[in-house]
Amino acid sequence: MTPSPTTPALEPPTLEEIRAARSRIAGDVVATPLVRLGADGPAEIYLKLENLQPIGSFKLRGATNAMAQAEAGELARGVFTASAGNMAQGVAWCARARGIACGVVVPDTAPEAKLAAITRLGAEIHKVPFAEWWEVLVTRRHPRFDGRLFLHPVSDRRVCAGNGTIGLEIAEALPAVDAVVIPFGGGGLTTGIASALRALKPGVRVYTAEPETGAPMAASLAAGAPVEVAYAPSFVDGCGSKSLLVEMWPVVRRLVDGSFAMPLGAIADAVRLLAERNRVIAEGAGATPVAAALAGKAGTGKVVCVVSGGNIDSAKLARILTGELP
Amino acid sequence: MTPSPTTPALEPPTLEEIRAARSRIAGDVVATPLVRLGADGPAEIYLKLENLQPIGSFKLRGATNAMAQAEAGELARGVFTASAGNMAQGVAWCARARGIACGVVVPDTAPEAKLAAITRLGAEIHKVPFAEWWEVLVTRRHPRFDGRLFLHPVSDRRVCAGNGTIGLEIAEALPAVDAVVIPFGGGGLTTGIASALRALKPGVRVYTAEPETGAPMAASLAAGAPVEVAYAPSFVDGCGSKSLLVEMWPVVRRLVDGSFAMPLGAIADAVRLLAERNRVIAEGAGATPVAAALAGKAGTGKVVCVVSGGNIDSAKLARILTGELP
Repeated sequence: MTPSPTTPALEPPTLEEIRAARSRIAGDVVATPLVRLGADGPAEIYLKLENLQPIGSFKLRGATNAMAQAEAGELARGVFTASAGNMAQGVAWCARARGIACGVVVPDTAPEAKLAAITRLGAEIHKVPFAEWWEVLVTRRHPRFDGRLFLHPVSDRRVCAGNGTIGLEIAEALPAVDAVVIPFGGGGLTTGIASALRALKPGVRVYTAEPETGAPMAASLAAGAPVEVAYAPSFVDGCGSKSLLVEMWPVVRRLVDGSFAMPLGAIADAVRLLAERNRVIAEGAGATPVAAALAGKAGTGKVVCVVSGGNIDSAKLARILTGELP
Repeated sequence: MTPSPTTPALEPPTLEEIRAARSRIAGDVVATPLVRLGADGPAEIYLKLENLQPIGSFKLRGATNAMAQAEAGELARGVFTASAGNMAQGVAWCARARGIACGVVVPDTAPEAKLAAITRLGAEIHKVPFAEWWEVLVTRRHPRFDGRLFLHPVSDRRVCAGNGTIGLEIAEALPAVDAVVIPFGGGGLTTGIASALRALKPGVRVYTAEPETGAPMAASLAAGAPVEVAYAPSFVDGCGSKSLLVEMWPVVRRLVDGSFAMPLGAIADAVRLLAERNRVIAEGAGATPVAAALAGKAGTGKVVCVVSGGNIDSAKLARILTGELP
């Protein structure tokens, strides 16, 4: 599965590019706190609270950095992205700030809370079947938004550089960090953070975490090559999928020490624990690394879990809090 | 209602004492983030997220500062406090760190989540009727914990100085702040923050907020003298009461520009909004200032709401999220 000529392997961002991204986005993005998990576990577990970003997820970092580097002429035509919800909010936030049009192609599985937030930000939503949505990620085109600048949620070096600023902040806030666990969706968050850490702290273990209902990274690492897996939709809608983006595999396989496929029950337990002991709301994706760390997957020492976002429907959250879900 | 000889009016902490408190507690307390509320309102509303402290409330600041100034001999006998839950966690946290015994007198209305947290921290809970509990706040004694050092949750200058560090952080993070809204329980949080702001930024408007089911501060300011009010227990268990502590009135009346008695429905709406738009969990007390700011009570401009804590039962939170409560 060599990348085709139309989808060359992504070049990960350099440390210099990540540092430049930090200066570029500083005024728009929250330098999120790193706090201890309020419960005992097999490791000293820390939480990097990206759910405290204005749009409720880390996606603001990459979107802001990419948009800041686009040309004014390109931007004037308007922008669009393909997203299950969080990148859409990132791009829509930036577009609103610049007063330009924003379109979003979403899969028909996208959750209500995320759609409502996209609408609040003034973007136009185009809902399509999952396969058609995935196709946009591969081709970077959709007839509905023809002529507009496409911002890829994952395989864009500027987006990854923006995400990488999380790695800089972790390294500074916790110089003795031993391991970092990152939710794996498309690989853009992983590529950014891991690129920063590999440069600054080569000894740190970098892991990804996925729901076991769709864990292509774990399966592909085990197989030594990208494989497709079964995928079942669940309350974990911000990470996990059927397959890897072909251009991401060569990058992420080099950057990551392992990936953990976590049961939905453990992820729901982590959502509940974060609410009760740290008073923060994580969506399924954001709680998946915490589930892995609590299960001892990331080993001992100082383990940082990237709580990537907190955009979850209130009704769904209520059912997790009362133990009805999953 | 002049303070009796046994309860002299509290002397508020000086700016120097608050600054000294900051150095003293820096290693133990989170310098919490100040973020924008993720919703439009009549003002530019900011949230000081004290619910992100390790024990889920601001009380760690005052407890840490007071305990750090107690003599080793006093501490060796063990400590106790009287608290509806949050100060108890603050004192218990510090006692555990020092390996000394901690007792807590709680009113029988104290919520389960707070009692469970106190127990997890290794403190001994003594549950009494509300009137007996209030008596401990006045007399600073209880036979069950005779001989131990009492740490008052409110009217202790060292506790207020610790709380005042929040004021320093607000002034630094948002130099253009116009108004601050603080939940009013016993007045210790108000005294601390207002003392810092009056010294650093005399032009800032300082307000308190209470649930209308128990709002003695609003009633007393209106009457020009401390008055008793009707009190009904509710999900807002961290602020609001029947009357003021006699030694606090002369202090707080000078420091505060007004107090807002908020309906439970508006407070529940604010809890829900904070969950949905900022991905944080506030207990009723923590959401009360947000309810006031959203209602326009604090006027326009840059309004900081002190989200004092987030310790709420999951079941109760779930019912607020689904609109069943109040």
